Amino acid sequence: MTTVGLAGRNPEAAWEACRTGAWDSPTAGICEEYVQANLVVLPWAEAFDFLRFCGRNPKPCPLIEVTDPGDPEPRLTAAGADLRTDLPRYRVYRGGELAEERQDVRDLWREDSVAFLIGCSFSFEHALLSAGVPLRHIEEGTNVPMYRTNVACTPAGEFSGPLVVSMRPIPAELVPLATTVTARVPQVHGAPVHIGAPEALGIGDLEDPDYGEPLEVREGELPVFWACGVTPQAVAVEAAPEVMITHSPGHMFVTRMTHEELLTR
Amino acid sequence: MTTVGLAGRNPEAAWEACRTGAWDSPTAGICEEYVQANLVVLPWAEAFDFLRFCGRNPKPCPLIEVTDPGDPEPRLTAAGADLRTDLPRYRVYRGGELAEERQDVRDLWREDSVAFLIGCSFSFEHALLSAGVPLRHIEEGTNVPMYRTNVACTPAGEFSGPLVVSMRPIPAELVPLATTVTARVPQVHGAPVHIGAPEALGIGDLEDPDYGEPLEVREGELPVFWACGVTPQAVAVEAAPEVMITHSPGHMFVTRMTHEELLTR
Repeated sequence: MTTVGLAGRNPEAAWEACRTGAWDSPTAGICEEYVQANLVVLPWAEAFDFLRFCGRNPKPCPLIEVTDPGDPEPRLTAAGADLRTDLPRYRVYRGGELAEERQDVRDLWREDSVAFLIGCSFSFEHALLSAGVPLRHIEEGTNVPMYRTNVACTPAGEFSGPLVVSMRPIPAELVPLATTVTARVPQVHGAPVHIGAPEALGIGDLEDPDYGEPLEVREGELPVFWACGVTPQAVAVEAAPEVMITHSPGHMFVTRMTHEELLTR
Repeated sequence: MTTVGLAGRNPEAAWEACRTGAWDSPTAGICEEYVQANLVVLPWAEAFDFLRFCGRNPKPCPLIEVTDPGDPEPRLTAAGADLRTDLPRYRVYRGGELAEERQDVRDLWREDSVAFLIGCSFSFEHALLSAGVPLRHIEEGTNVPMYRTNVACTPAGEFSGPLVVSMRPIPAELVPLATTVTARVPQVHGAPVHIGAPEALGIGDLEDPDYGEPLEVREGELPVFWACGVTPQAVAVEAAPEVMITHSPGHMFVTRMTHEELLTR
């Protein structure tokens, strides 16, 4: 099955293709109408502090759903799905180290496993594009550049670490619009955390991002920084829980919720 | 000490007056500049589901802070305070039944106690009054009327129950303004859940509220309904946890956070 095979399809088609192994690729460009989510699965004992961490840092950690302990079905936003099989690819961390990558985590699921579905940038960029703000990394088909900053997240229990931001070059005359549009959607990152001066965030070289690929900032443009959904996963890895399951980068979970539903809820 | 004694004072003065027993009265009208919060204290085992419940129902359950297990100090929004002594009056529920009312809960505090500070209507009404929306219950010095509705909250674990709403009569021409102003502050209840037709919420008689006191809706006014912070406490009582500590009605906790800080965060 190619990307084309899931473009414009509904979430059930994506879940089934992942479950049967027919789909083992990144999820950008599939089921475009629906919200995709980052996945973090933790044992119940660690889930409470991680949930508090997300609540204390809502800009980088926009929670879409937190499942009932032991239940692999996200009943609120993806009824009928099984989080143990319905993503194309998973990563398993043990003690904070990447232990393996696989397509099915049924045998790792515990009675006390709690899944966190965390908003990803697709919904956020949907709002910007709808407002007429151009996004260069999408035009060029690259990953957005992301940077670890000198801004500390508010810790909760074992979970602490720096805020990670994504950068998008925005024409100066559109910066107010980009700010206003994203301020209206606190459910996915909200307003920028910084505009224009990367050094104030401790970013030494824009051309050397910590994640993703560099992106040119042209004359007449400002670099605009938003809190990034990579933050909670990076923080969870650093807390080194005994076992943690996540999606593989780019291989996200497709929910039943449309972008419009998320942006207006 | 009279109300006048704490009007315009800072939070430390209120904490000390509560701790020493000098203040044993409702907190309306004291430390006016600062955000007051509803209190719910649960053992860690129940706290995770209650936190998920609040996250799933953000309009009635605006979380201001969730403390570290066992720590009676709300370090983020009221550093230096002690939640075991610094409220004027507490209620203790056992198995969902009101067991006692007291001024100090030090001997009930456990190593796994988790405190939830939940936004109260004062901050919310501050935003409305600042925008020029008149509030009759404040003019008349009564409690706002509150109603249990036929709208179910999204449950989480043992926690479930109906949405409780507060009603404020608003002149029809100011309803758009009241809606816009409160939509901008999702951190305290957000936009109205309903405008104009109480029967759609299952409210039979506006003059017979479930909590608070009735309030006249005059000609040219509409009844406007907002999600109410009484909801999470009512839901927690119905879940009948082994032990739960709350503030006594009207006897709230004063944080260090100003209304402006809350409304702009």
